[in-house]
Amino acid sequence: MQQVLQYIDGRRKQHEAELIELLQIPSVSADPAFAADVKRAAEWVQRRLQGMGLAAELITTGGHPILYAESPPMPGAPVALVYGHYDVQPPDPLDEWITPPFEPAVRDGKVFARGATDDKGQMLTHVESVAAWLAVAKKVPLQVKFVIEGEEEVGSEHLGEFLRANTERLACNCVVISDTSQFAPGVPAITYGLRGIAYFELRLTGPKQDLHSGVFGGGVANPANALTKMLGALVDERGRVMIPGFYDDVAALTDRERKEFASLPFDEAAFKQQLAVDQLAGEEGFTTLERRWARPTLDINGLTSGYQGAGAKTVLPARASAKFSCRLVPNQDPTKVAACLRKRLTELLSPGIKMELVEHHGAPGVVMPLESPFLQAAATAVEAGFGRRPVFIREGGSIPIVNTFADLLHADVLLLGWGQNDDNPHSPNEKFSLDDFHRGIRASAALWQELAQIKK
Amino acid sequence: MQQVLQYIDGRRKQHEAELIELLQIPSVSADPAFAADVKRAAEWVQRRLQGMGLAAELITTGGHPILYAESPPMPGAPVALVYGHYDVQPPDPLDEWITPPFEPAVRDGKVFARGATDDKGQMLTHVESVAAWLAVAKKVPLQVKFVIEGEEEVGSEHLGEFLRANTERLACNCVVISDTSQFAPGVPAITYGLRGIAYFELRLTGPKQDLHSGVFGGGVANPANALTKMLGALVDERGRVMIPGFYDDVAALTDRERKEFASLPFDEAAFKQQLAVDQLAGEEGFTTLERRWARPTLDINGLTSGYQGAGAKTVLPARASAKFSCRLVPNQDPTKVAACLRKRLTELLSPGIKMELVEHHGAPGVVMPLESPFLQAAATAVEAGFGRRPVFIREGGSIPIVNTFADLLHADVLLLGWGQNDDNPHSPNEKFSLDDFHRGIRASAALWQELAQIKK
Repeated sequence: MQQVLQYIDGRRKQHEAELIELLQIPSVSADPAFAADVKRAAEWVQRRLQGMGLAAELITTGGHPILYAESPPMPGAPVALVYGHYDVQPPDPLDEWITPPFEPAVRDGKVFARGATDDKGQMLTHVESVAAWLAVAKKVPLQVKFVIEGEEEVGSEHLGEFLRANTERLACNCVVISDTSQFAPGVPAITYGLRGIAYFELRLTGPKQDLHSGVFGGGVANPANALTKMLGALVDERGRVMIPGFYDDVAALTDRERKEFASLPFDEAAFKQQLAVDQLAGEEGFTTLERRWARPTLDINGLTSGYQGAGAKTVLPARASAKFSCRLVPNQDPTKVAACLRKRLTELLSPGIKMELVEHHGAPGVVMPLESPFLQAAATAVEAGFGRRPVFIREGGSIPIVNTFADLLHADVLLLGWGQNDDNPHSPNEKFSLDDFHRGIRASAALWQELAQIKK
Repeated sequence: MQQVLQYIDGRRKQHEAELIELLQIPSVSADPAFAADVKRAAEWVQRRLQGMGLAAELITTGGHPILYAESPPMPGAPVALVYGHYDVQPPDPLDEWITPPFEPAVRDGKVFARGATDDKGQMLTHVESVAAWLAVAKKVPLQVKFVIEGEEEVGSEHLGEFLRANTERLACNCVVISDTSQFAPGVPAITYGLRGIAYFELRLTGPKQDLHSGVFGGGVANPANALTKMLGALVDERGRVMIPGFYDDVAALTDRERKEFASLPFDEAAFKQQLAVDQLAGEEGFTTLERRWARPTLDINGLTSGYQGAGAKTVLPARASAKFSCRLVPNQDPTKVAACLRKRLTELLSPGIKMELVEHHGAPGVVMPLESPFLQAAATAVEAGFGRRPVFIREGGSIPIVNTFADLLHADVLLLGWGQNDDNPHSPNEKFSLDDFHRGIRASAALWQELAQIKK
């Protein structure tokens, strides 16, 4: 293991050169004009994996190809599957880039290019770590499988199909994804939980057409009034969601989790300043990080009714609608939440108003127990790579592909983010710290060693 | 008096010919292309009034001219001021007219033309009645003043200025306006009350920009949630406005008024069908007509926040706003209502949200006591004209000019509508029943007689 790390440390220049070569390929998956470049990036990764002696296959899909490779099986050891992507976001607006997005430039120890952190740089750490093991030890301590796709930035349209058709081939004990961030510079993190979502649209109808609010006001129910009354009743003053059954299945934060979160260097004052609010708000009894990462919410995403132009119009609107969504935490079930919501809204419906509730999409939250041996192994590996024990964090958003992996492969998912929060992944001047790149390769190399020791 | 009515009955053909002549002039005040026609209509009315021997003057304004005329003073008798307008709404959409808007056509006893009921036909009844008095009795039993403007359909921009500059010249005891409708065919009505209005816009701001609802949801106050909570708290389940002080000054309906309303042939089932609702709604304890005419309301006129396009977007909006208005009844004061509302909204404001309350416009409601001698005189006159005692009704909307007259001239306002609810005043195929036209002339002639008997 020490030899592997030394080997990695000795090849910083080569690793950087390879990263820069890959970053020069404008593999913009969203734009058909770049289709050949997207293919070229896939082939680049394929050649790199083949070059180290792995069988690597480009699988044709209805869209951009999926690259699949695997190291030899290691009986008795678990199997790890690395998921990443070689496609990138469009680089627009081009004139805000200090150096061109596909001409990687190193400034202040960081490489600036589209895809630097999302996800070419992070993905490559796992490729280089496997290469190092193969170079030094002629084997990897456990079998590593690679699924590197080219459609992550356009919704992974063909990945689900590939996964469903290949569950046996892809069988594994854990999935490793490096496409997130550290908690802060110098504070490496393992993301062990994500919130789910249940997205709704409530459409209310009153009279058949907009009416004069003078002539008709008071005579007939106003759907906009009804909408505010219904939605206003769904969250109370203490920030609790007032839908009977909503909290029934919520997995409570453990004492250990609350302690982990409390120990994080989270600066509330800076966060308030970032958002330009004089006060934070949310569910009573929980810290800001707890509320954002591990407590369910109900947030209105959009409101539409009546006259929205300048000035005044005395209209009693015929319709009013709202888009709103609940962020869910383990073990809430989006289907059950939808049923509870529908029941509550039906109770809250005013006389003279018709209601339609559209269920847009739902996904459960995911969380790995902090006691999971995979998490523990990953923590040790991250420490080996970064020289500091990682913190355990969760994410308030959803990463749909994580649910897909967890559902189809029944594997734990390790979200090991080597990036920083200010790496500008979908913005101009995307960057990745070269130090974080090299530390990531080291951590990945250590990960194979640590995971290999887990009893299957 | 009987001679005057006989004279009127004998001149039906001439009156209809005059009405048709005036309706042929396309006096569309909104469209500068018709400016010469607007002036021609004013001159037509001027000639008609001069022809019967009155001093009639066209007063230049910054817009279309105001016609002013008066009959000789009658010492000891009150003074009546007739307000009407010679301008009309644009006739669009032209292709929905059965016969062209400025080629008056009589079908089924009704004249179809733009301006037939609004307001050329109704306004002309008072001109013809004064002409009849002058022809038969060589005098009108009281002094009648005419203010006939040409900008009613574009907001009466220059009328207020004229009224303010001429309060002495225009001094009167009552203002007569025929620009409304009967309650139903064969049910003549006197409108003795109007609701006022106080129109607001509430703008809430949360974070400085739209945020990802997954990453930030639960951490920061959502202005759309806050908006629904605040507005949803302003009206309770029984339809009562929940603003302390809101009802303090509300003039209660008298027993006589409630009886008058209850006796009206108002068909709730037909009203529901017209609006396509299965149930009417509003403040508990009041009938539909009471709620629409004589009870204050709070109706949301528009809602705006976040994402309003198709599908789902997981945004935590930075801003949310609502337009809403209270219909007011006598003796509510829009300024006081605004202050009560501001106080209540400030109490309801959620932590982390900033609020701006814009007061768009306000006007108090007006009502004349049913016991007013002017109303009694008008009722007797309407009965003389229509052969049936009028019902006393109110209007849910506001007519701003009524407030202006009441405020500046301190006169009672008589709203004597000769039209029908389905006369299409701002729509294609506007019409006016010729029978109602003739009855209106008779009622107007009787009105001068009845009003003249009121002690000043």
